[in-house]
Amino acid sequence: MRLQTTHLAEHQLRELRRLLANHNGSAGMAAASLTPHELADLLVTLQPAELVQLEPVIGVERLADAVAELDPAEAARLIVRFSRAHAADILEEMEPDDATDVVEELGDEDAQRILAEMEDDEAREIRELMVYPPETAGGRMTPDFVSISPDVTVAGAMRLIRAQAADAETIYYIYVTDRIGRLIGVVSLRDLVAADPLRRIGDIMRHQVLRVPAATDQEEAARLLLDHDFLALPVVDAEGRLIGMITADDVADVIEEEATEDIERLGGSQPLDEPYLTAPLSQIFRKRVVWLMVLFLAGTYTSAVLQLFSDTLSQVVALSFFIPLLIGTGGNVGSQIVTTVVRAMAVGDVAFRDLWRVLTREIIVSLCVGIVMATAIFIRSETMAVDATIGIVVALAAIVIVVWAAAVAAVLPLILRRLRVDPAVVSAPLITTLVDGTGLLLYLSLARVVLDL
Amino acid sequence: MRLQTTHLAEHQLRELRRLLANHNGSAGMAAASLTPHELADLLVTLQPAELVQLEPVIGVERLADAVAELDPAEAARLIVRFSRAHAADILEEMEPDDATDVVEELGDEDAQRILAEMEDDEAREIRELMVYPPETAGGRMTPDFVSISPDVTVAGAMRLIRAQAADAETIYYIYVTDRIGRLIGVVSLRDLVAADPLRRIGDIMRHQVLRVPAATDQEEAARLLLDHDFLALPVVDAEGRLIGMITADDVADVIEEEATEDIERLGGSQPLDEPYLTAPLSQIFRKRVVWLMVLFLAGTYTSAVLQLFSDTLSQVVALSFFIPLLIGTGGNVGSQIVTTVVRAMAVGDVAFRDLWRVLTREIIVSLCVGIVMATAIFIRSETMAVDATIGIVVALAAIVIVVWAAAVAAVLPLILRRLRVDPAVVSAPLITTLVDGTGLLLYLSLARVVLDL
Repeated sequence: MRLQTTHLAEHQLRELRRLLANHNGSAGMAAASLTPHELADLLVTLQPAELVQLEPVIGVERLADAVAELDPAEAARLIVRFSRAHAADILEEMEPDDATDVVEELGDEDAQRILAEMEDDEAREIRELMVYPPETAGGRMTPDFVSISPDVTVAGAMRLIRAQAADAETIYYIYVTDRIGRLIGVVSLRDLVAADPLRRIGDIMRHQVLRVPAATDQEEAARLLLDHDFLALPVVDAEGRLIGMITADDVADVIEEEATEDIERLGGSQPLDEPYLTAPLSQIFRKRVVWLMVLFLAGTYTSAVLQLFSDTLSQVVALSFFIPLLIGTGGNVGSQIVTTVVRAMAVGDVAFRDLWRVLTREIIVSLCVGIVMATAIFIRSETMAVDATIGIVVALAAIVIVVWAAAVAAVLPLILRRLRVDPAVVSAPLITTLVDGTGLLLYLSLARVVLDL
Repeated sequence: MRLQTTHLAEHQLRELRRLLANHNGSAGMAAASLTPHELADLLVTLQPAELVQLEPVIGVERLADAVAELDPAEAARLIVRFSRAHAADILEEMEPDDATDVVEELGDEDAQRILAEMEDDEAREIRELMVYPPETAGGRMTPDFVSISPDVTVAGAMRLIRAQAADAETIYYIYVTDRIGRLIGVVSLRDLVAADPLRRIGDIMRHQVLRVPAATDQEEAARLLLDHDFLALPVVDAEGRLIGMITADDVADVIEEEATEDIERLGGSQPLDEPYLTAPLSQIFRKRVVWLMVLFLAGTYTSAVLQLFSDTLSQVVALSFFIPLLIGTGGNVGSQIVTTVVRAMAVGDVAFRDLWRVLTREIIVSLCVGIVMATAIFIRSETMAVDATIGIVVALAAIVIVVWAAAVAAVLPLILRRLRVDPAVVSAPLITTLVDGTGLLLYLSLARVVLDL
């Protein structure tokens, strides 16, 4: 992705902080013209004393918008720097689903104290949302939906919407529920606007409403919303009662979060729990070292293979010159293919049933690639003035290694998914490591046969 | 990402095709119950004769929904299998922005013939949209927005919306334009519903409307929409006239497309132009082989380094046993860091100004990682019964290589971005390749000094 969200430049931040420090009234004015995103940038750099000064100028509504822009962990660290009363005010102004994410990141004690300062209604909503794990539909949903009875008229529904417009997160879908709160239909604001004001909602509503249980994975819910181009998706409890909805603005967040996790996994580490720059170093260390050790252990057999062939290597030391180039090329081919295949699986373009098709395609492409790389490595060996027979061995090994790497990288992610192994284990470094040792075995065996050692 | 969009199972597809082949009426019934996504799955497997049969049962509207689910290149291949008149009908039913994407993938001749069959209005819209490159705001936008004059009353606006509700892509934002079509304000349907019916639009509209010029990169537009949680973003021409809008459902598509491109680049290939399974093999070959050759050339100096140290290697052949493990570990560390940093840059968490912070963090973490890996590799050398001094050399080299790989991987993406080099060049395989040769140089120099060769 090439473009970034707008950020304040360093000098703008400095200028704003200077104005604040001098109790200059224009600091508030300047801060008031910032977008929520830019205001968030400013807030995280301020001291508690400066935050106190800023609060009356900015107003709690804009502060809430800014806090909602932050990652929940970062927002939690910011919010405790306000007084508890102010923190409670800010959380009250936020959408309940966003506020819940922040409260979940607070320490237990801070969370309880701030919740105690909040209005009962808002605090109850947050406590209810905290029941659902954050990465589920229940954890993402907002309880601020509009629901009506099927017996209301279109005109009556419009009156009701007008009254609720300020509180609901979206009024573009109005859900229809029966007496015990079960979801039985939906009308869009668009339908209402176009409908005869005297008709009953029950007569114009759509009866088939796509819904998800609260325990649904957030990504599954996001994809449903996307596939159907909906603006919101209702969430129901085990009895089919409507308890919330997921809105379209959550979808892009979910897609982006999940893409980030996939990228970190493909790069060979466990995904971080929070943005890179604010994640504690100990967390980064833990997330990385686990996979490095696994890869190290998987890679130790390369040393065994080389030890096995130590006679060959000491007789023809030139063979060792090409080890990094050969296993590097194999690793690069594997990396290209595994990232493409894992991504194609993630977006739903490839599934296990495509195994043979994927394998055939990759074998054909890698044979062509192998021939190109073999030519290149043969030319390189000639420029190094090593024996031409060695050049031929290296070139043949290049073809074999490229095709072998392609086959492993194409098939392994699909098979592991089929075996229900967490796809997190298939990374480019893993394929590289697996191909390294087998590639060496192929190369040195070939050398032994051809060079008659 | 763990979850995929719904697909038809193989046996469902077979059953549907069997019913169709037997001219069984229930085929249409069965097909009618499919989601647009599932219907798209079915359509691409059908022959022209089967498509003709299906068309009257399914109806052009549902066909259009299904075609819109496909990737444009795939949709173009499908649409030419219908008669030209049917193809024109389907394109007319689609949103103009989606239809344009498909027409752009058709051959020139097919495109002109199908456009000639379409209603003049719809064909003109598509021709106008084709002016803008596909990856810009102009290429993504729909021209089906609702706009009104500021002098209309709220009640008048509602009447107008009711009349346009069927054609417009969204009626949730109504744009206010002056006499020559320049964008001067916006009201949401939400505002309208809550407003006094007798007030003038000019009095209730918001004057500050975020807008983008048609040439804006699609990702920049998507991020603006996301940052502001809007449902749509207006697009203007050079004179400030409103020419279209980008809607929220495009945003998730853009984010997903761009994430896929990033992932393929990080894996070391150029992004494919269409979904993996339908991309021609020649395209896959071209996209991959370019980077493989670049990486090969960048990696050739590894062989020069090893040739330079060939005396050392023939004197102590055991040194070569650890080459793959050492450069593998360096490459894995580099891969972890470069993917994390490039992703953090993409989502806007890290910029050039954070260079020193990133570098310091990575040096600290990698020192800890280096010590762990050094211990592991020393233990491994002991189990292989090589000389303990060699084990110490290998362990020291591990620390140096890990820290060096971390520094390169942390700094290079930020510096390249600063130099305005296309970030596409920074991939995990590139870092691995760069670190391979320098790592070997460090390792073998250290060996020469310590072992006094």
